[in-house]
Order: sequence, then C-alpha cells, then structure tokens
Amino acid sequence: MKPSHIEHLGIAVTSLEATIPFYEKLLGTKCYSIEEVADQKVKTAFFKVGQTKIELLEPTSPESTIAKFIEKNNGRGGIHHVAFDVTAEGVANCLKEAEEAGIQLIDKAPRKGAENLNIAFLHPKSTCGVLTELCEQPK
Amino acid sequence: MKPSHIEHLGIAVTSLEATIPFYEKLLGTKCYSIEEVADQKVKTAFFKVGQTKIELLEPTSPESTIAKFIEKNNGRGGIHHVAFDVTAEGVANCLKEAEEAGIQLIDKAPRKGAENLNIAFLHPKSTCGVLTELCEQPK
Repeated sequence: MKPSHIEHLGIAVTSLEATIPFYEKLLGTKCYSIEEVADQKVKTAFFKVGQTKIELLEPTSPESTIAKFIEKNNGRGGIHHVAFDVTAEGVANCLKEAEEAGIQLIDKAPRKGAENLNIAFLHPKSTCGVLTELCEQPK
Repeated sequence: MKPSHIEHLGIAVTSLEATIPFYEKLLGTKCYSIEEVADQKVKTAFFKVGQTKIELLEPTSPESTIAKFIEKNNGRGGIHHVAFDVTAEGVANCLKEAEEAGIQLIDKAPRKGAENLNIAFLHPKSTCGVLTELCEQPK
C-alpha cells in the first residue's frame, strides 16, 4: 500500500454552525461544501488546506458513530479519523492487502462516502488506536 | 492566518518499536527519522505521505503529556494533534492573531520542536477539542 497523501482529516464536532466560523478563521479559507451523508448519520463541512481536506462531522442522530465518539469524549469534539488517498492502487486492492497482513477491516468492500469517494475503514484495533480510512476518487 | 498545508499529524503510541513496522506497511515508506525531544518527554518517529508527516510519539516518562493522553485513552494510542505549517506568516504573528481572536494559547511564544521547527500549541478548549499546533521552518 502506498497512499499518495492524506485525503482528509475527520474531526467530530457538536455543531457545524458553531465550528465552521472558527475553522474559516484558523485556515484562512471558506468552507466550500456542506453535505449530509445519510448512511453515516452525519452532516459534513469541508475545507481545503494544501493537499488535504478538513472534514467536520456533526451527528444527525444519537445512533451516529460520531455521536458516540463525542459522548465518550465527555461531550467534546476531537480528531475522529485520518483518510489516506489510495486512488492509484484502488481501495479494493488495499483492503485485500490489509486483510492478508492480518489487519481487521470495518468494511470488507469499498462503499460510497462523502464527496462521492469510494471508501473503506480499517479497524482501530489493528491500526494502533487510529481509525483509518482508505479512499479513492471515483472513475 | 492561512496555513499552506498540514505539516504533520501527531499520533500517540505506547511503543515505537511495535508501531513503526505497521506504519511502514500502511504508508509503503520507511521511517526516515527517530528523534528524542527531551523537552516534551517523547521519542518520535517520522514518515512522509504527500505534503504531510506522520509523527509517532512514544512517552519517555509517565510525566509526559503523551503518557497522560494514553492513560486517558484506556491505555491505547490515538491521534493526538494536528500541526499546520504557517512558515509564510510566522508562528509569532499567528499567535498574536489567535490571541486577538480570543483563542487560548498553550505557548505564548514560539519554541523549538522536533526537526528543529519553531512551534506553538493552541489550547484545545479554544479549538473545538482539537489540540492544534502551528509550526514554521527555521530561517
């Protein structure tokens, strides 16, 4: 596996409305997209800094994994996951390689994520506590 | 403030020795540097992925903030902080701007970090729960 760059950094927040102005100031750039990902029960807001996006994630349901993350984190947001771009090799090939290397997978096959990317998550138990996403640009 | 890119992502680990082989496989690249930062009571290992470095941080003392982070995280590692490159404006100018915007600072002035960078941390209370570092290349 050889990711080309960090595609995005996922940050859990309690409220996009309250957090977007802060990141616009910190990054000196406007939020360029807000999108609801029904499948993951989140609303996302995106910023670009160099090659990488900052993806703010607000839960839309208490059942959302982001809501549970915030609950465990004493009601505060925090860095939730890191996503690597593996477009060159493809997510499916990387999942196969990861599984052969004994890494536990959350997703056995690529699925659709925000911004229409093909994505899959590796389990933090196998990735030193870091929730790790692989993603590729759709063809 | 307008960072050019994410300079590095800091990941707390219980053992560099146990974690480096995993990241070498995940990123398809060798760890290019191991450095002890006595000031922060950590040993660090660096990898490069695109514009960004992955910085693994192993505590060298139970007094280290990284040791405390791992303790709070039920003995597991995890993503500890994100560092933005503000070389163009300089860390000192960004700290002034942050303070004027009401952001609580951990470091009132730049200090030396790993890889000889000039660095300063913003307080996670003011940054939506995300420990945020600013850094610049030394002149």
